[in-house]
Amino acid sequence: MPDDFEAMWASLAPIGRSASSGGYFRQPFAAAERELASWFEEQALARGLSLTRDGFGNVVAWLGSPGPRAVVTGSHLDSVLDGGAYDGPLGVVSALAALDLLVSRGFSPSRPLGVSVFVEEEGSRFGLACLGSRLASGAVSWDTARSLTDRSGVSVEDALAAASLSGPSSSSLLDGVTTFVELHVEQGRDLVDRPAAPIGVASGIWPHGRYRYEFRGSADHAGTTRMQDRADPMLTYAMTALAANKQARLADERATFGRVEVTPNSTNSVPSAVTAWLDARASSSSSLDELVGVIERQATERAARDGTSLTVTPESVSGAVTFSPELAARIAAPRGWPVIPTAAGHDAGILSAAGIETAMLFVRNPTGVSHSPAETAAMSDCLAGVEALADVLADLAGDPVGDVG
Amino acid sequence: MPDDFEAMWASLAPIGRSASSGGYFRQPFAAAERELASWFEEQALARGLSLTRDGFGNVVAWLGSPGPRAVVTGSHLDSVLDGGAYDGPLGVVSALAALDLLVSRGFSPSRPLGVSVFVEEEGSRFGLACLGSRLASGAVSWDTARSLTDRSGVSVEDALAAASLSGPSSSSLLDGVTTFVELHVEQGRDLVDRPAAPIGVASGIWPHGRYRYEFRGSADHAGTTRMQDRADPMLTYAMTALAANKQARLADERATFGRVEVTPNSTNSVPSAVTAWLDARASSSSSLDELVGVIERQATERAARDGTSLTVTPESVSGAVTFSPELAARIAAPRGWPVIPTAAGHDAGILSAAGIETAMLFVRNPTGVSHSPAETAAMSDCLAGVEALADVLADLAGDPVGDVG
Repeated sequence: MPDDFEAMWASLAPIGRSASSGGYFRQPFAAAERELASWFEEQALARGLSLTRDGFGNVVAWLGSPGPRAVVTGSHLDSVLDGGAYDGPLGVVSALAALDLLVSRGFSPSRPLGVSVFVEEEGSRFGLACLGSRLASGAVSWDTARSLTDRSGVSVEDALAAASLSGPSSSSLLDGVTTFVELHVEQGRDLVDRPAAPIGVASGIWPHGRYRYEFRGSADHAGTTRMQDRADPMLTYAMTALAANKQARLADERATFGRVEVTPNSTNSVPSAVTAWLDARASSSSSLDELVGVIERQATERAARDGTSLTVTPESVSGAVTFSPELAARIAAPRGWPVIPTAAGHDAGILSAAGIETAMLFVRNPTGVSHSPAETAAMSDCLAGVEALADVLADLAGDPVGDVG
Repeated sequence: MPDDFEAMWASLAPIGRSASSGGYFRQPFAAAERELASWFEEQALARGLSLTRDGFGNVVAWLGSPGPRAVVTGSHLDSVLDGGAYDGPLGVVSALAALDLLVSRGFSPSRPLGVSVFVEEEGSRFGLACLGSRLASGAVSWDTARSLTDRSGVSVEDALAAASLSGPSSSSLLDGVTTFVELHVEQGRDLVDRPAAPIGVASGIWPHGRYRYEFRGSADHAGTTRMQDRADPMLTYAMTALAANKQARLADERATFGRVEVTPNSTNSVPSAVTAWLDARASSSSSLDELVGVIERQATERAARDGTSLTVTPESVSGAVTFSPELAARIAAPRGWPVIPTAAGHDAGILSAAGIETAMLFVRNPTGVSHSPAETAAMSDCLAGVEALADVLADLAGDPVGDVG
């Protein structure tokens, strides 16, 4: 008898949790995330599912065998640094529970049905979000990915080897997959303001990107160097962070500097360099270009005044994703669920861009907060999500036995 | 035959040097700095000097024995992160070379004469500048110092133990020491603009302090959280860094944010906290208070607008130091050396505050830059510094044999 939703959820709760913050540290290929990966494979095997893996850590557990016109559902198990419990794992646990529900209903799929886990969805270790699904779908090549490094200088290739993963394999994990459904905790307040809607369906994902800003100046003694003799990159950065916020606020878009690294990061030294990462999102690609352009222009102008220099490198830029409107309508309309956009990136966006018919279900999050220990969802809403996902999979992958004439 | 100045300097050059930046990483009680400490003891023993140590890593090498009315000269061997070669080691190597010069002149001191090294002058590991001289002079207690921690959470007590240092001993290293002279590379451009002055004498040290600014907000998803729903401590920090610079510029004083730590420091998260360290210096204690006060007030006002909170903790505040004007005049006047103030903290300032008659000699630095790989000094100026220091020590510690009637 496999674990039910609540038992699965309880068994994940302690893994990678910080006792001080209550947040989760589940970095790809590190101990906590690998423990979750092992847990997933155990759960799959306990259900008699068959596993297919690529060499990157991505895995699909199949009810029966993979094949043409397959329907896959799933999410990710990695977290941002000090993230919430639900972002990712809710979709994986719900997928397994939905499969259980279908089996208990005597459901027999007419299409192959699988539960997937993609690695490094957050990009919190190697900087490129959705790295696993990009590799699996061919959106990024192994040659590009292998040499990405984490903050300690460890490459993707070495991290895979340390986790006993082989790297690229010849067969594709996604061969035959034509439909993908991802259930995810909502990362905003859209459903909160609709009391009758514990579940929403995604219309699409805002275009978004990550841009590395490298500000360079001159190291100096913080006590003896006169202010007018300095070329302090911290000032250029500080003005840029404020400008980014202001521009995004004016346009009702998003611009965030959440990660900063200072060299040498010494109290009594003027820094020689500040590197900071801009996360920017907008409702259309042209408005994203405009937002990013004005921030870079203001930063460059300030650098000239500060005597510093600036290099901006886009680390990943994702265009707008529009999920299949037909599929969204087929799921949402009969159930009265709202169809809503999101500014958060997801593996579903990568798979959609790769030509797979894709849908997302969101489960209501009372705080609206994500990437934070404050992220949450009511158990009753989670169980409603499992039912919803089971219904959608039944709809997509076959007819319930009882309905077959 | 002990090494001469140039040989000593050459043997130090590779220790703790970064091949990529050319800067030095000589953190207290870590490998490079301990290698320098061993090197110092070997050099002292090669000269037949006798060593006294406290349990903190501070050491004095005596020509003969310690005793009343002792004259000590020396500096430090630790560096800031990615610092220059001269800041500290120049004073230690020059002290040994000056002793050699006195011995070669047949000098016989009428007062005990020692060469000192104090640990953690920069405060780059444990945050409290001049930790070694503060402990040796009683300006900070062992109970306060033992639990200071570095960025990895290692305490002073554990760092000492790892370096096989015992911690506090019953006898004081500074018993009987009534005069201290520190030679140091200049950390500014005062001497550069005086071509006839390779050496200057310090009048005093500006009051200065380090203040930890802890900005707290709410972690959130960088994509999905509307700008107006955020409480982003990065914004409060950024405005504070700009305000500090502006206030210091207006008052011709110094205010620097050179060290920043972001939690969780994730590209796609609004930070929950930003901690940054203000280094502030001014020409008088009242103007320092005013400078620090206006920066904190502006930061607090901005925090209220951002929905964040701010806690400011002074980590170390040093009042103005005025070195003995009589001693400075006795050294400078007959030689035509300029008497100049500095905004850099030094062990000499701590010992002066502890009632020891203290003087500092500065050696010209062509770039004016310090706490940077660009810090430098001409070999001819360094050798002039050795001569100057030898003359000053001869003046203070006894008459040259030839002059004795």
